[in-house]
Amino acid sequence: MQNIGFSDIKITGGYWKTRQEINSSVTIKSVYERFRETHRFDALRCEWKDGEPDMPHIFWDSDVAKWMEGAAYILNSKNDETIAEIIEDAIDCIIENSDENGYFNSHYLVTEQENRFRNRDCHELYCAGHLFEAAVAYYEITGKDRFLKAMCKYADYIEKVFKTDKNAAFTTPGHPEIELALMKLYKATGEKHYADLAKYFIDEHGKHTEEQNYIESFNEYYNQDEMPIKDRETAEGHCVRALYLMCGAADVAYEYSDDELKKACERFFDNIVNKRMYITGGVGSTYIGESFTIDYDLPNRTAYTETCAAISLAMFANRMLKFGADSKYADIVEKAIYNGVMSGVSLDGKSFFYENPLEIDPEFNNVNTSTKQKERFPITQRLEVFECSCCPPNILRFVASIAGFLYSFDDETVYVHQYMDSETNANGIKITQKTEYPANGKIIVRCESDKKKIAFRIPGWCKAFTVNRNYVIKNGYAYVVLNGEDKIELEFDMPVRIIAANRRVHENAGRVAIMRGPVVYCAESVDNGADLKSVSIDINAEFEVNDSELLLPVLKTKAYRPKENENLYYEAGYDYEEIPLTLIPYYAFANRGESEMQVWLLRKQQIRGLCNKT
Amino acid sequence: MQNIGFSDIKITGGYWKTRQEINSSVTIKSVYERFRETHRFDALRCEWKDGEPDMPHIFWDSDVAKWMEGAAYILNSKNDETIAEIIEDAIDCIIENSDENGYFNSHYLVTEQENRFRNRDCHELYCAGHLFEAAVAYYEITGKDRFLKAMCKYADYIEKVFKTDKNAAFTTPGHPEIELALMKLYKATGEKHYADLAKYFIDEHGKHTEEQNYIESFNEYYNQDEMPIKDRETAEGHCVRALYLMCGAADVAYEYSDDELKKACERFFDNIVNKRMYITGGVGSTYIGESFTIDYDLPNRTAYTETCAAISLAMFANRMLKFGADSKYADIVEKAIYNGVMSGVSLDGKSFFYENPLEIDPEFNNVNTSTKQKERFPITQRLEVFECSCCPPNILRFVASIAGFLYSFDDETVYVHQYMDSETNANGIKITQKTEYPANGKIIVRCESDKKKIAFRIPGWCKAFTVNRNYVIKNGYAYVVLNGEDKIELEFDMPVRIIAANRRVHENAGRVAIMRGPVVYCAESVDNGADLKSVSIDINAEFEVNDSELLLPVLKTKAYRPKENENLYYEAGYDYEEIPLTLIPYYAFANRGESEMQVWLLRKQQIRGLCNKT
Repeated sequence: MQNIGFSDIKITGGYWKTRQEINSSVTIKSVYERFRETHRFDALRCEWKDGEPDMPHIFWDSDVAKWMEGAAYILNSKNDETIAEIIEDAIDCIIENSDENGYFNSHYLVTEQENRFRNRDCHELYCAGHLFEAAVAYYEITGKDRFLKAMCKYADYIEKVFKTDKNAAFTTPGHPEIELALMKLYKATGEKHYADLAKYFIDEHGKHTEEQNYIESFNEYYNQDEMPIKDRETAEGHCVRALYLMCGAADVAYEYSDDELKKACERFFDNIVNKRMYITGGVGSTYIGESFTIDYDLPNRTAYTETCAAISLAMFANRMLKFGADSKYADIVEKAIYNGVMSGVSLDGKSFFYENPLEIDPEFNNVNTSTKQKERFPITQRLEVFECSCCPPNILRFVASIAGFLYSFDDETVYVHQYMDSETNANGIKITQKTEYPANGKIIVRCESDKKKIAFRIPGWCKAFTVNRNYVIKNGYAYVVLNGEDKIELEFDMPVRIIAANRRVHENAGRVAIMRGPVVYCAESVDNGADLKSVSIDINAEFEVNDSELLLPVLKTKAYRPKENENLYYEAGYDYEEIPLTLIPYYAFANRGESEMQVWLLRKQQIRGLCNKT
Repeated sequence: MQNIGFSDIKITGGYWKTRQEINSSVTIKSVYERFRETHRFDALRCEWKDGEPDMPHIFWDSDVAKWMEGAAYILNSKNDETIAEIIEDAIDCIIENSDENGYFNSHYLVTEQENRFRNRDCHELYCAGHLFEAAVAYYEITGKDRFLKAMCKYADYIEKVFKTDKNAAFTTPGHPEIELALMKLYKATGEKHYADLAKYFIDEHGKHTEEQNYIESFNEYYNQDEMPIKDRETAEGHCVRALYLMCGAADVAYEYSDDELKKACERFFDNIVNKRMYITGGVGSTYIGESFTIDYDLPNRTAYTETCAAISLAMFANRMLKFGADSKYADIVEKAIYNGVMSGVSLDGKSFFYENPLEIDPEFNNVNTSTKQKERFPITQRLEVFECSCCPPNILRFVASIAGFLYSFDDETVYVHQYMDSETNANGIKITQKTEYPANGKIIVRCESDKKKIAFRIPGWCKAFTVNRNYVIKNGYAYVVLNGEDKIELEFDMPVRIIAANRRVHENAGRVAIMRGPVVYCAESVDNGADLKSVSIDINAEFEVNDSELLLPVLKTKAYRPKENENLYYEAGYDYEEIPLTLIPYYAFANRGESEMQVWLLRKQQIRGLCNKT
């Protein structure tokens, strides 16, 4: 099964066209400026001297590399001399300052040369991996290969140090990512030994716990070194590390037909989506270790749910589709990209969330007069740059390449995993989608191809749909026989749905979330007044679906709130007031000033004069 | 208005008789043993040398002093040679090791003599105050005055240093308590200058912020030094410090007829009980600074609600009664003593909670595999001793002197503030109460006195009651004219009540607490199975009231829980199961192994086949 790359697909309308336009006009510049101001680009010049301010940080290269990767993607559809020059200048720096082995790291080269590959927790291989990804991207978009060649030399050196000579102080990266990057390098160059090196790292994880160095307070789970991947039953430790690693593992399992490793990937996926994932596709229940915790532990207000984690969940789920089309994977891609990923960037494209909580209650954050210490809550407004600023350029490259999630194909069938207004003509497959999805569920697909079939994902959230052709359902995909020039009309019924959480998710007890299609909704006090936590909603409520400036529709309904009462405690009665309730797409929260925000609303309770019997 | 001291009252039956028996047979010994083992009693010998282990801690004297005070109280009703000897031995140590000025502090005397009264945050005046309280107690119970005299000398020295010479490094204690202790010293000795010194400290609070030393990360609110007491509108900072201080302030306001200070006390009380108090009478919404936060910020699972804070709230509320009988004060005494205080000690009297949360969910505490760091939650099982072990001896002295909350009198009237099976004959007032209160609401009061009236508090929770005599209600008290030898029968209707919280308490949105009389109930998973957070209760539910081994009745009713569902998220429906629900008195939680615990249960929601219309 092969993917149709995003560079062969043009997004032509709808939500993603708007998002991509902002991404390529605003986000790319804004992230560049913040990185420039914070000396991340300067660092590539390797001119920093001991005692100067702004010492290059161990993970700055990865920030710049992700920006370069995203910028390359944007150059695919847009000529921009300025961006092209910035990339070329960065490549100049990297090539000029790489040492005779091909090694490049803007921190180690100017600070502690002697400690190269001595500290597992210093992100060297993670930075290398991102540089490889950037080089592959730039090569594939522009055809220019000097950056790719330089990174191949670097990869060869890593292979020598880690696999051949085994003289690094550790055997696997503390922060995985190089595994998936090496698989990309292999695909771009055809050099199988890069895949072999990826497989080597994948196989080594968890084998050498005794000799590794761990950050104080963190352990082998944090570093994805607790046990061999094949033995794992659950998703543990730092979410982004875990998910990047498993992206590499899925790539390796597919490339080497490693069924045991594939099964570990399946268990990992199932554990996440069945027990450890927020309804937004966010993962990471605690800031401590930025990590998974235990099944059903999904606090809303302190959710960590890093943007990069949602991105990497989508990346991992998409890789699982290579083993065969199964809608459970593409459904999670969809869930993540419309919710927990895109909440990570403001509607104007300039500012970002690292953490994406499902509840914000700003009045009750940090309100202890007696101390300068604070309890820790996620920030309530997006920032333009973070000290650890992995998420902004990750969003940049993700949005630029979003179309890569749309299609794959094998000898017989073209698979349509996601629905976006778009056109492609590659690999002998010409497809256009005309749709406003997910504003509504109507999609017209035109397909010209010599493939026998086209398979459409039927979203897991969809209980009723029509296809204007005969179809056969298999693993959540509707297979339609192609005639050569086909026009297929799909319509997914898209009512507002009221979702409950498993009763083991104590945080959501008595509460429901509102979804329409793949989009999770939330309420903000800027629309609805304060004390949102006390607002309840009838599970049979009727909703108006209204267009809005938030790109996808907002919902209007009525809800119930306890009347004001001057007492702190009082005998429970039926004094509720009916209020109009506006729900906005979750991704759009915190775009209109600081506000209370709730995804999980109370389910309507006993209210005077209203019979709840059904 | 004068109090009838606990030493003139005998508890003769019911809940408090049992608690006092355990207190005087088990708790006193258990706390002593733990303090002995941890060298707190040894410390009084002042033999510790630099380099040795177990350096006397700055607040150990207060622990021992509170034990001595409680032990003295117990000697009032029980001859116990062993206890008497321990006290005498401790007094020997204190007197022998006091310096020529009368100064005694088992930490400073052996560690840093030169730093005496240099560090405001080192609890010297707090320890002194507790020693004064112990000395007054021992004198009043036994008539022996050598300890009292020693402490008077110490108090004179403090007066000289702080008030006359003003050569301490600070002007008011970082941890208040000495103010109320000086008022006790004044009452015991008649020496008005002790009251004047108390007044001096009260008046100085908040005047000299510039010259004080504060603990790193804490500030002037923490130390009750943010502004003059008379200017304060809200309850801020460390709860126990605030409440002990305001006990002293109330005493001083009463003694000096300081109306401005009295009004500050009233504002402080109102802010707490109307906006910052848990339904259990617990206060302290965060462990950071053990402090008040802001109005309506009352998280249940991370509630700090120190046992000492509930005790000191009862002490403060009781002092406010001196200004005139008003049931709002005695109601809070009652709320605290039956709930947030007594939850601090196990039913067997041996172990203690420092923090008394309103929700325990042990499975979801500290469950991060990737880190050795933990999020902070209150402990789930009581301990026999803490490093900071203020609460155990505080409970000891509190239970031993509980009867002191019962009565006060003025020229005309005897006031009955609390209801306990008891007898007293003092100050020309002979009263017996025959009652099982609060197991039920029936009380028979016999009174022989030359007072004109007896006034009974009508509990704020009580909506219907009978008195077998004519009465007039004023400020929540029913005034009955006395004939000389009276038998008055009261009956307070005591149905189970379902209580809601103000909608601004976001933590309790959609939830209700169950009370019967003054007793707050909770559900534990040991009775009801797991996932208590998802259990809902009908606000019209009927309850069985059953006797139990937990001293006061348990309640049985039916409740509703979502059926098990294998999905993490699913369309909300009506799949609830009816379950029997057992509710136990809150004070009895965590006595039967580690368990989930919930005070605030979900209010019943839309359930299939059940009409919630009322």
